[in-house]
Amino acid sequence: MDLLSIYAEVSKVNSIGSILSWDQNTYMPPGAAADRGAQMAYLSQISHRLITSEKVGKLLGELRKVELDPVKSAMVREIERLHRRKTAIPEDLEAEIAGLEPISTQAWVEAKKKDRFDIFSPHLTRMLELKKELAEKVGYPDVPYDALLEEYEPYTTTGQVREVLNRLGEELAPMVRKLADFKADNRMNMKWGKYAPEAQERIYTSILEDMGYDFGRGRLDSSEHPFTIGSNDDVRITTHYMLDDPRPALFSCIHEGGHALYEQGFHIRYKNTPMAEFCSLGIHESQSRLWENIIGRSIHFWKHYYPLLRGAFPGLSNMTLEHFHRSINTVKPSLIRVEADEVTYNLHIIIRFEIEIDMIEGKLSVKEIPQAWSDLYEKYLGIRPKTDSEGCLQDIHWAMGVFGYFPTYALGNLYSAQFYNAMKKQHPDIERLISEGDLRTALVWLRANIHEKGKLYPASELVKIVTGEHLNADHFIDYLKDKYGTLYNVYF
Amino acid sequence: MDLLSIYAEVSKVNSIGSILSWDQNTYMPPGAAADRGAQMAYLSQISHRLITSEKVGKLLGELRKVELDPVKSAMVREIERLHRRKTAIPEDLEAEIAGLEPISTQAWVEAKKKDRFDIFSPHLTRMLELKKELAEKVGYPDVPYDALLEEYEPYTTTGQVREVLNRLGEELAPMVRKLADFKADNRMNMKWGKYAPEAQERIYTSILEDMGYDFGRGRLDSSEHPFTIGSNDDVRITTHYMLDDPRPALFSCIHEGGHALYEQGFHIRYKNTPMAEFCSLGIHESQSRLWENIIGRSIHFWKHYYPLLRGAFPGLSNMTLEHFHRSINTVKPSLIRVEADEVTYNLHIIIRFEIEIDMIEGKLSVKEIPQAWSDLYEKYLGIRPKTDSEGCLQDIHWAMGVFGYFPTYALGNLYSAQFYNAMKKQHPDIERLISEGDLRTALVWLRANIHEKGKLYPASELVKIVTGEHLNADHFIDYLKDKYGTLYNVYF
Repeated sequence: MDLLSIYAEVSKVNSIGSILSWDQNTYMPPGAAADRGAQMAYLSQISHRLITSEKVGKLLGELRKVELDPVKSAMVREIERLHRRKTAIPEDLEAEIAGLEPISTQAWVEAKKKDRFDIFSPHLTRMLELKKELAEKVGYPDVPYDALLEEYEPYTTTGQVREVLNRLGEELAPMVRKLADFKADNRMNMKWGKYAPEAQERIYTSILEDMGYDFGRGRLDSSEHPFTIGSNDDVRITTHYMLDDPRPALFSCIHEGGHALYEQGFHIRYKNTPMAEFCSLGIHESQSRLWENIIGRSIHFWKHYYPLLRGAFPGLSNMTLEHFHRSINTVKPSLIRVEADEVTYNLHIIIRFEIEIDMIEGKLSVKEIPQAWSDLYEKYLGIRPKTDSEGCLQDIHWAMGVFGYFPTYALGNLYSAQFYNAMKKQHPDIERLISEGDLRTALVWLRANIHEKGKLYPASELVKIVTGEHLNADHFIDYLKDKYGTLYNVYF
Repeated sequence: MDLLSIYAEVSKVNSIGSILSWDQNTYMPPGAAADRGAQMAYLSQISHRLITSEKVGKLLGELRKVELDPVKSAMVREIERLHRRKTAIPEDLEAEIAGLEPISTQAWVEAKKKDRFDIFSPHLTRMLELKKELAEKVGYPDVPYDALLEEYEPYTTTGQVREVLNRLGEELAPMVRKLADFKADNRMNMKWGKYAPEAQERIYTSILEDMGYDFGRGRLDSSEHPFTIGSNDDVRITTHYMLDDPRPALFSCIHEGGHALYEQGFHIRYKNTPMAEFCSLGIHESQSRLWENIIGRSIHFWKHYYPLLRGAFPGLSNMTLEHFHRSINTVKPSLIRVEADEVTYNLHIIIRFEIEIDMIEGKLSVKEIPQAWSDLYEKYLGIRPKTDSEGCLQDIHWAMGVFGYFPTYALGNLYSAQFYNAMKKQHPDIERLISEGDLRTALVWLRANIHEKGKLYPASELVKIVTGEHLNADHFIDYLKDKYGTLYNVYF
């Protein structure tokens, strides 16, 4: 099909961009930054021209009249969506957003450093205007935020997200208050000793291998912020080693490993088609969270791995399995999203989601953000940031023009619990298997039910097919109640 | 100028290719090899289409009628040459050569491993046919080899190369025989001890910094074979560490550093034009050889650096400066080109040059190569390979369809000595400066006289302008006679 060969070219261009982006975040010399910007912009331009070409429009028009099998039909659906979206966005608008991004990000870096929201706010104001304009150009079923959400979580509406996040917020807020009453176990304040990056890398590599991450088609490096990049036969992950605590790198490796297993798990015969691409960011995040939290922070997992970890790290010799497990599952309201535990984490997202919607709908002006931010932290987490740096300036997303991304983190948590329960129905002994070091059973299930499906179904359909239910917050809430009820000896 | 903006695009595509190629040779997971091949082929195709486009032809036609300043004129000359050459080569011929290359290389790997020339010969035969066809398509002033040479050493003819290499061969053969009479100094057979890659990397990095290599626009990694890649603001080098001998990595770092200084030394305002590109491979090699051999293997250089080297490597504690200097300047006829000293090295090249010409001119059939090879080693070096693996199968070049490249290695040596003598005329105290650790004076001279010239002049003109003489072998021969006469206490 001609359409697929054009799409394969788009896909190839994007894969080249992935390598450049990986290089930029790992090994690139600083002096090459300007050239790299130009190279990336050039590749975007090629990819944009290919997907918005008249030829693609014409081929799509012809294919509309043809009966296609489900796989081909899904491919055409996705190419059509991309073509429509990209064609709807005027080139000069796209260029203005792309041009503003580095300037706005630069201002954000400075604003965060100096704790001065006013340095960032004019750029955020402009970015917001541009993103609103983009939403109008793209169009939406109900509210402008739909158009922004579509970039990350297609086929899911703002209304649907609001419904599940509202329910989640209602359940989490009292749960967090109850758990916060517990004094932090002071064994948690232990000194962790020293952890050489080489020793950390060795043990995390071995865990990643057990998870099924194929190092023949991937690699592990270090970078300022951990990430996963690439797909199919070249899927790389990074982590960031802390010398005095193994946990951040450990869990970022398992997290990125979850993302990477998804990207390595598409059908090889669909390479360079939408069938060898992730379904949505929420589904992507479900894979990382399932591995990082549901499996990786479970007592079952550590029954097997703690002896190995302790063997690798003498610093852990005085810490029992139970203490370690508790140390990786401490619930405590905090100000910084990326450091939050799996219970409070979702409240950070709910706060951002509410603010984003009000911003896009014009109910909240940029200068009102710091106040709204603090009030919502007070409401949901019972704490107020003392500075904007630890408040509304903490995340890079808005500076980069990324609106509608935050909710996918919470959706990922919901999907992960819902998928895990479906997995448990088929493998009632999954926790025993994990405690014996068998991670492959989980992977095989994820491969067959999620990874190999690629973009065959929209996320909402995928979750219905795999779990028999629509997306809902119940499974995740039950998971948290069960886990933290037991851990904290409390009844919710 | 429209032409320059198209060329800037070609240049950008090529710079993307450089990053992919660097990655392929350093960090790429093995499973990504097939995708990488497709990505590289795609970039070549874009670049080829751009440079051969009718628009470029039209713009060149218009510019022919216009008076241009010397810089613009050189740019147009180079773009025209590339356009003419690439347009002359039919796409299917180019594709067939590109398709044969991996197959032929694969066969060569196997043939070399099993010492069976017959495994490689059918592919070499086909490659030779294709390259002859290519030469016919491209055209040539005198002999078909001219057309192949042009890819690496433009504006230089086979006749010119033959003339200087003949003279070089006549001088070197007796010189090598004389030096080979000396028994190898048995202190050269010392045990070198152990050299951790990290310690090696530290000291070579510091030497590279002293040379003026800008790590802000470059980096040093390790790879199977050392190489330099990229230009201007992103110029990376690699080396290959041996644990039991620091010399191979040390000299490959200085060698690649010489290449890299050239690539970092173009005028930044000419970025993405032919003025910010190397003049020819011979000139490129003159930069690496000048640093590696003329400076890097001189007693002056080591007067300053040997104490530092000995401080870094306890394994050298029993070796005096004089012994070390002798150990890096031992002349001994050997079978393997890449391990040869700077005197015998050129004979390896002369042998390949003679064989290549006879192959291309049809005077030597593929099956006669092993015999011809051994006879020429006997003639020039007084030794015969026992196997084809250590004979005509040792180099990858022909398997990759690279004919006309070998002579540039020897031209590099000739240029390097000729340039160095010109530098000495302006800085009669250069050797004292080097012995005091001042490498910048040499760099500043190279920058002004060679690096910043880019492709302004053809190599033959550049050498005339910089040294006042046409390319000739005298300077290099005098350099060798002087250096090895002193070292071996012999009169040539």
